[in-house]
Amino acid sequence: MEKMIYLDHAATSWPKPPAVGEAMMHALEFAGANPGRGSHRMAVQASRVLFETRKEIAKLFAVNNPNDISFGSNTTEALNLAIQGALRQGDHVIATMAEHNSVRRPLEFLRMQGKIEVDYVPVDASGVIELKKMEHMFRKNTRLVVCTHSSNLLGSILPIGEIAQLCRKHGSILLVDAAQSAGILPIDVQQLGIDMLAFPGHKGLLGPQGTGGLYIAPELDIQPLLHGGTGSQSEALEQPKVRPDRYEAGTPNTVGIAGLGAGVKHVLGMTPSRIYQHEWQLTQRIMEGLSSIKGIRMLGPDIGQPRTGLVSFVVEGYDAAQLAFRLDRNYGIAVRSGFHCTPLAHESAGTTGTGAVRASVGYNSTQGQVDQLIRAVTELTKVN
Amino acid sequence: MEKMIYLDHAATSWPKPPAVGEAMMHALEFAGANPGRGSHRMAVQASRVLFETRKEIAKLFAVNNPNDISFGSNTTEALNLAIQGALRQGDHVIATMAEHNSVRRPLEFLRMQGKIEVDYVPVDASGVIELKKMEHMFRKNTRLVVCTHSSNLLGSILPIGEIAQLCRKHGSILLVDAAQSAGILPIDVQQLGIDMLAFPGHKGLLGPQGTGGLYIAPELDIQPLLHGGTGSQSEALEQPKVRPDRYEAGTPNTVGIAGLGAGVKHVLGMTPSRIYQHEWQLTQRIMEGLSSIKGIRMLGPDIGQPRTGLVSFVVEGYDAAQLAFRLDRNYGIAVRSGFHCTPLAHESAGTTGTGAVRASVGYNSTQGQVDQLIRAVTELTKVN
Repeated sequence: MEKMIYLDHAATSWPKPPAVGEAMMHALEFAGANPGRGSHRMAVQASRVLFETRKEIAKLFAVNNPNDISFGSNTTEALNLAIQGALRQGDHVIATMAEHNSVRRPLEFLRMQGKIEVDYVPVDASGVIELKKMEHMFRKNTRLVVCTHSSNLLGSILPIGEIAQLCRKHGSILLVDAAQSAGILPIDVQQLGIDMLAFPGHKGLLGPQGTGGLYIAPELDIQPLLHGGTGSQSEALEQPKVRPDRYEAGTPNTVGIAGLGAGVKHVLGMTPSRIYQHEWQLTQRIMEGLSSIKGIRMLGPDIGQPRTGLVSFVVEGYDAAQLAFRLDRNYGIAVRSGFHCTPLAHESAGTTGTGAVRASVGYNSTQGQVDQLIRAVTELTKVN
Repeated sequence: MEKMIYLDHAATSWPKPPAVGEAMMHALEFAGANPGRGSHRMAVQASRVLFETRKEIAKLFAVNNPNDISFGSNTTEALNLAIQGALRQGDHVIATMAEHNSVRRPLEFLRMQGKIEVDYVPVDASGVIELKKMEHMFRKNTRLVVCTHSSNLLGSILPIGEIAQLCRKHGSILLVDAAQSAGILPIDVQQLGIDMLAFPGHKGLLGPQGTGGLYIAPELDIQPLLHGGTGSQSEALEQPKVRPDRYEAGTPNTVGIAGLGAGVKHVLGMTPSRIYQHEWQLTQRIMEGLSSIKGIRMLGPDIGQPRTGLVSFVVEGYDAAQLAFRLDRNYGIAVRSGFHCTPLAHESAGTTGTGAVRASVGYNSTQGQVDQLIRAVTELTKVN
């Protein structure tokens, strides 16, 4: 697979910085014990790995106390913890049509159980929401607003700061899904007014799969999703109140979290704003390059507008899955086709019937790779 | 840490077979994409990693269809999925006093919410339960029986086959916590009559931390714990019915699961019965060696009786935590002290006030290591 052109960073970043694998192997060898469950040196070493990574992530998101960040296996787990943990019988929730199934499905699960009510703010074809429409949806019992920071189909960036102001005004909690933005867009949870932030470890933070987490503001207490051993307060019937133990039952993924720490260090070194600039320039190049193809329609914001590092498109007369398959087989270019777990965003984009091809760039993508994508799509849509 | 004598295998096995780290690095490099979320070759490769590991685990537990095994981040997640997913308003549950907090806390959480009722079968000091007492606890609404296969404090082995017969008779589901037995005791889910089996990846299966899973019998449908993207049926509001997708929302820990596959292969090569024999002989050696120490009390089954690879003990006049600390500092021996997340088992053993020191052996432990433990404990309890 040496020659593969990897343009599927929105699913998982690849390859990882070499320090990630090194940190994982080091942890497997020297911090292989169970953190927080023993006082012997290797267990202490394992606890340190967790704390170091927590500290790096706290730095990235301007979190005061690293213990307000709890680790989980992916963004989905973090979102389920936030949603299932914060909501009570009779609550109302506002979400957007740009949400991923990892937001929509837990909400719909609670709704179908008769526990909550949900409204979804419409998103237009370029991925923008009307704040006015959102504001009208607030009710007295609106406990939670869930919003993706950036659409995983459209690449649009949602106005988190302004949404946070609405939440403050109406006394609602703001949960942000940073699946596509963590490590790429600047996120200062205090400045933006984010109460809970769910993030993946394996995308923009450059860590391995199996990692992710949730920031929960210190004044907010939600129910844990997992109940079990924490190595602390063993005799108590309930999960301990102390963080991060409260939200981290069971043996953590020490090795993965070691890799995540190395990934976040890499991000902090490059700085998210430089990564964003780099990715933005590449998406603009893709859009310009593809724009001359007959029958192409690119989803999301126009050229020149802010977007995260992905471009989704459909070409009239061409099946998205076929196109993606041929890009892989004939050109060694890895992109993604299908519905990207976000059916309502496809409704907004008018691609419910067809799906779309999504090319997504990362910290290490190059102009050359992007040019090869443009050339390949151009060729494939000339000869059917 | 080259000279460390690691006797904390009941927390996490260490070191792993070299193939585990190799498989992880290989997956990080060549199967780094998002399994089930794309059709490009690397995503297919990632799906294959998951399927291969599922197949090996199915072989180990005599599961017909590997897709009846779903992966999660640890045993705690598997137990929470099983318990929270199977129980409904008004259900009654029977568990034992040998259960870990990863069973007790989710049960108590549901009980305190007014959703379920729970009874705990007493365990005597050697870790044995009276089946008669358990049988008397069954009610018409006993939906679930939860039982650890082997106590993580006492090392006793519970009669799963006989408990399964009681469950059949009373129409109850049997959930077994295999945290201390997977890879060590023979487990044939069909022959034993186990409906759900929760297992860790990072203990007896020799995989990395961050892995574990749940077997769910094909005829049993429980609620998912996590709702979100599965890469399949994106347009559906609910989790798909198809397994393993139903119970595996979000990006899986591909790298960790690759390592787990290598671990399970190692176990299948050695065979659990040989691993058990090896560990049993070492525990007998520990018990004989420690038995001459004045004031020592070893918990769990007597010498000569079946037990998994751990020996917990207290020495009159010596603090368990101090003893463990000195074993590490003065002798480089890693054991665990404290309550091991199992307060009710300490009640049974009469060690609620003191905690205990637990030495636990693994597939790669040696007689020489065990002899050093005996010598060290003997010395430390001679001079205070």
